Amino acid sequence: MSELTRLSMSLEQPLLQQLEQLVAEHGYANRSEYIRDLIREQLVQREWQQDEQVVGTITLLYNHLQRQLSERLTQLQHHHHHQIMATTHIHLDETMCVEMILARGRASELRHLLSHLQQQRGVVHATLSMTSTGGQLR
Amino acid sequence: MSELTRLSMSLEQPLLQQLEQLVAEHGYANRSEYIRDLIREQLVQREWQQDEQVVGTITLLYNHLQRQLSERLTQLQHHHHHQIMATTHIHLDETMCVEMILARGRASELRHLLSHLQQQRGVVHATLSMTSTGGQLR
Amino acid sequence: MSELTRLSMSLEQPLLQQLEQLVAEHGYANRSEYIRDLIREQLVQREWQQDEQVVGTITLLYNHLQRQLSERLTQLQHHHHHQIMATTHIHLDETMCVEMILARGRASELRHLLSHLQQQRGVVHATLSMTSTGGQLR
Amino acid sequence: MSELTRLSMSLEQPLLQQLEQLVAEHGYANRSEYIRDLIREQLVQREWQQDEQVVGTITLLYNHLQRQLSERLTQLQHHHHHQIMATTHIHLDETMCVEMILARGRASELRHLLSHLQQQRGVVHATLSMTSTGGQLR
Repeated sequence: MSELTRLSMSLEQPLLQQLEQLVAEHGYANRSEYIRDLIREQLVQREWQQDEQVVGTITLLYNHLQRQLSERLTQLQHHHHHQIMATTHIHLDETMCVEMILARGRASELRHLLSHLQQQRGVVHATLSMTSTGGQLR
Repeated sequence: MSELTRLSMSLEQPLLQQLEQLVAEHGYANRSEYIRDLIREQLVQREWQQDEQVVGTITLLYNHLQRQLSERLTQLQHHHHHQIMATTHIHLDETMCVEMILARGRASELRHLLSHLQQQRGVVHATLSMTSTGGQLR
Repeated sequence: MSELTRLSMSLEQPLLQQLEQLVAEHGYANRSEYIRDLIREQLVQREWQQDEQVVGTITLLYNHLQRQLSERLTQLQHHHHHQIMATTHIHLDETMCVEMILARGRASELRHLLSHLQQQRGVVHATLSMTSTGGQLR
Repeated sequence: MSELTRLSMSLEQPLLQQLEQLVAEHGYANRSEYIRDLIREQLVQREWQQDEQVVGTITLLYNHLQRQLSERLTQLQHHHHHQIMATTHIHLDETMCVEMILARGRASELRHLLSHLQQQRGVVHATLSMTSTGGQLR
């Protein structure tokens, strides 16, 4: 844990009341934690915009009956084994699979990886969620 | 202007340094102004999610040579005159026009208005940007 | 108007039904128009990502009682007169103003302009909506 | 696999060229696959907007040294065991952990779950990526 520093800021009275409401609505313990999360969100966005070393989760939805798709996805992932840290496979129903893939690399590399996986025939949806290595967020 | 209230918060030391950097990068006069804008952005998003009375700008890009399009757009806008506060038309080049339309109403009404304008033949792009009446942001 | 070309594509039967529903829900005259708009949206996003010459609307919400804000905003806009094509000012209520600013330039320039306007004290919200010069969308 | 249906559509000639470029840039095998993915993306967005039964991945970034955080996260996840299908934990470095959590439920329930996990002290970032059960995408 990093040490906490006290700082003061000024806020218009009505805006302060709105802030208190936001904190309550989102169930945060206090104002500071809520504001910290707003700042961290900006930092994560900056890391992705500036193509820094980031962490992201790719979620793939696909039909495992599609011929050779599983093999191709596995092959592709091995090819990117420097970026991919873990893959979890879930059987949604008789035909549909979901894979969550945690990857680390430069933002542009993870976007490229997403695009590569998404274009495979039988993958019906692919999405990338953006988080951080945490270095700047502590 | 509302009166400013002083409040204090706590922040991890490295996160404070990151905050100072964000403030500098975005050219804000000080930390408080930057954080106020983060909070206001959340408030605007909440207003739109909760379908409150909001303000939005619709930007239309269209080809004025498209038969009867100008008439249809004008008619449609008159039909929504309770929501539309102002329209500015810009001649981009020989064929393309842009219209900025400022509208006020419930969030769902403005989305509906966008969809109505967008589906007209000859409109090649339409987009809606979300802001507020300002009541909660002062 | 550009000439229309006929092309054929294949779609899974259930996906075709979903497409028909989307077309109906959004009120489009036919499938082709709906798909054209999906493609155009991708083209607009690409133009902004690749920092091409684009068109954007900046919407500013501000309190005109803020000392010298109007002067500063006017000055700033004149400084960017090569990018700004038109500005429309609307009086929302006793204190709040909205300005819609249509600007043309490289995507990064318009983002920079947004940031410049947003950081002025008294501006309570600023947002940028992304559209195109239309060159690639016709 | 669903059976493929042939359909035809019309497109302005220059827009068709742009489409071919998008298909090539994203590495798709053909036009139809690219357009299918555009349609599916709209369907996923509609499912989330209409609060249907959906699938989502929550990615949590947190400091495992934070007192009792791991216990609280585990407890919370058990409380939501009807929605959570799988959790994968990755050790990023000495202090930071990432958890990918695959959840199924109504869109609003998954948003609520995200908010619940995010507000825990020590969680420095949380994000939700939206996909589908696949029912409408095949």
